[in-house]
Amino acid sequence: MRGDLHKLSAVDAAQAIRDGRLTSEALVQACLDQIAATDKTIKAWAYLDPELALVQAREMDRIRKAGRATGVLHGVPVGLKDIIDTRFMPTECGTPIFSGRKPDTDATIVNRLREAGTVIMGKTKSTEFAYLHPTDTTNPHNANHTPGGSSSGSAAAVAAHHVPLAVGTQTGGSVIRPASFCGTFGFKPTRGVISRTGLFRTSQSLDQVGVFGKTLADTALLTDVLGCFDPADPASFGRPRPAMLDGTNAKPPVEPDIAWFDLSFHDRLRPDAAEGLEVVIEVLGPRIERFPAAPQLTELVQVHKMIYDYEIARQMSPIAAANDDRLSTCMRQTIARGLAISDGQYEDALGVKTSANEFFTSHFNDFDAIMAPAASGEALPLAEGSTGDAIYCTIWTLAGLPCVTLPLLIGANDLPIGVQLIGAAEEDDRLMRTAAWVQRAMTQEE
Amino acid sequence: MRGDLHKLSAVDAAQAIRDGRLTSEALVQACLDQIAATDKTIKAWAYLDPELALVQAREMDRIRKAGRATGVLHGVPVGLKDIIDTRFMPTECGTPIFSGRKPDTDATIVNRLREAGTVIMGKTKSTEFAYLHPTDTTNPHNANHTPGGSSSGSAAAVAAHHVPLAVGTQTGGSVIRPASFCGTFGFKPTRGVISRTGLFRTSQSLDQVGVFGKTLADTALLTDVLGCFDPADPASFGRPRPAMLDGTNAKPPVEPDIAWFDLSFHDRLRPDAAEGLEVVIEVLGPRIERFPAAPQLTELVQVHKMIYDYEIARQMSPIAAANDDRLSTCMRQTIARGLAISDGQYEDALGVKTSANEFFTSHFNDFDAIMAPAASGEALPLAEGSTGDAIYCTIWTLAGLPCVTLPLLIGANDLPIGVQLIGAAEEDDRLMRTAAWVQRAMTQEE
Repeated sequence: MRGDLHKLSAVDAAQAIRDGRLTSEALVQACLDQIAATDKTIKAWAYLDPELALVQAREMDRIRKAGRATGVLHGVPVGLKDIIDTRFMPTECGTPIFSGRKPDTDATIVNRLREAGTVIMGKTKSTEFAYLHPTDTTNPHNANHTPGGSSSGSAAAVAAHHVPLAVGTQTGGSVIRPASFCGTFGFKPTRGVISRTGLFRTSQSLDQVGVFGKTLADTALLTDVLGCFDPADPASFGRPRPAMLDGTNAKPPVEPDIAWFDLSFHDRLRPDAAEGLEVVIEVLGPRIERFPAAPQLTELVQVHKMIYDYEIARQMSPIAAANDDRLSTCMRQTIARGLAISDGQYEDALGVKTSANEFFTSHFNDFDAIMAPAASGEALPLAEGSTGDAIYCTIWTLAGLPCVTLPLLIGANDLPIGVQLIGAAEEDDRLMRTAAWVQRAMTQEE
Repeated sequence: MRGDLHKLSAVDAAQAIRDGRLTSEALVQACLDQIAATDKTIKAWAYLDPELALVQAREMDRIRKAGRATGVLHGVPVGLKDIIDTRFMPTECGTPIFSGRKPDTDATIVNRLREAGTVIMGKTKSTEFAYLHPTDTTNPHNANHTPGGSSSGSAAAVAAHHVPLAVGTQTGGSVIRPASFCGTFGFKPTRGVISRTGLFRTSQSLDQVGVFGKTLADTALLTDVLGCFDPADPASFGRPRPAMLDGTNAKPPVEPDIAWFDLSFHDRLRPDAAEGLEVVIEVLGPRIERFPAAPQLTELVQVHKMIYDYEIARQMSPIAAANDDRLSTCMRQTIARGLAISDGQYEDALGVKTSANEFFTSHFNDFDAIMAPAASGEALPLAEGSTGDAIYCTIWTLAGLPCVTLPLLIGANDLPIGVQLIGAAEEDDRLMRTAAWVQRAMTQEE
């Protein structure tokens, strides 16, 4: 097998490796070459040891050649956001406070990746403690723009063909927004599908794991691999999980029904993004029903912020006590703000969160998905000093709903813009089926 | 769907439930009726709360009817050997010492069962601490005979159509022998495929998990569900596992080659078993190559015994210190014997174990499987006070190889006799493919 191996999708690469048309070593070497050629500018990687990646690749090749069992992602390299604990690589969480930190155990999802036969390529850059303070990672489409955050390196690494797959996390919009900015597919499944044990915690109530891929099917397959019931994670559930890849490959029994809410903060959308989304709505025509802004939906943005601030402040304050001078200003401000929130205010916010879940459950009786912006528009210039606004994602993250972003639009500066679809809780397969339908409908029409 | 629901295989039941032709509640109720009708004699269950089983069944039905995700064993009841920790049911390990014991956490395999959608039917009787002292369980084919041990209740429950599936453990021959005695399929996969975290430990080096089913495919599917990389279990491995059900359904590329060793202890086989095995060898003809006893193979029986005695004695002695009067005589004797084994003797035995693994690895270059007796013959009469001799299994257990028993023979007293097949480590799928071929060859010829 020749050509641009580093551009292969994960599904295609895994199939080629299983069939013996491609070795993991050749694939990993092609990805390493691409990293060597481009990462001086992109700066996606917090830790990368080419030899360690190649050792894993050769072992996967040895297993396959010996006729032993292969995994569904056998020999396929994956990047891990650097808040995911790994015993064999440092895990620094985007902060000098954790410089050289080596955890004693792997995160639970690293075990899932191992049994699927993946090669753990390295650790991708996270913003400081997966919060707002940016990394030095740049957008692969234009190095003067942000890749988004907090999963900056994971999104950039997939967009730059450094790896076909990467894992990130989302507490606000940290998977969907960087995927939108970098022009990859991004998927955050229903809260609890993927274990968070061994990940740096910012918010027990809100933190969720998501993935980046070059195709929708790639994100689905990786999510199938990562999914696991883990009683050590209070969000995890001991029930069957939706089959993500099967969902992606399924044809809808009838054309799907999609809802669009005109939310108050849509006035912050950049004109090119707003226009592009209108085109999508027009193309999908009768399949989309448009609703005025429900005020309680907008209020959820504040509820999300209160829960996040309260929880991250309490997680971070022991670290801040010893390292105040090594935290960013915005993190110190958030800790102060969060500690000022009373237990009563926090508990009220948790109550609203629960009722929001019920609102959405009833809503999905009539609709297969909600469509929404993934971000305000194109990736912001680095000069703005921000990884972008999470507001287009926070409501859905708060409710723990599955969200996917499709790289369907191109903005005024030739940068990608994603279109977000949100599904019913624990019906990620239906969301994936709908998203695949939208993807087909939009790319056929264009 | 009507008729003998309790006689459905797990594969068929799961398919019927997924298709909406059968509810989990109807299946579980049929199994409960069968238990009510027969367990006064068979005594397979250490703990069974019909309402708790039905609650789980109704929940699985509710999930399916709501269009939510279903698991591969959705709504199918499974029995668990009573050394497998469950939070919601007592786990008494076949001893009055643990009477009413309620563990704080579920065993890791219970989590795997939950995400597959199974109904945890109840706990099946184990011999005292999964060792030799018998339970009061009787053989479903003849209540005057033993079901075998130590997974007595699991084997009997499947054979008596109380549940389509049950989980057991094997340190010597505790899955393969009771499956042979009760006429079910039994499968113990490669050591490390299934986690032992949360199971009562008798021997860290030898304890392994296995399963009972009505068909080979049932045992394969349950093993696929239970398999998981669990770093908390030192035997577990972070590599892809063989796909058991795919193996069972695969056609061999050519007819398989099977080895038979004439081992010194085969002179202990009952005449009807020895005759039956000769018939199998004859029917399979050129596919079987027969070898004289390799003396180092027989020595492994002693190596197994030394490791087992050494380890179980050290596990049991703290319990024995406080409860000596509530232990069986044979357990007390074993503890004394095991404590007398020196660390040096034990380490030598572990060394031989390692070299045995290498011997077998090279052997499986030429053969797809080894065929061997599963037990001495039919189930022993209860009057003999023994669950039978594990010697036909201990070598393979020591080497951690995958073993399966097929209920192919009927003995002089009309009781079943199994035929054991042993495969290469981590090539369980090849073993299952070979076993399915043997099963077809034998049942077509008869």
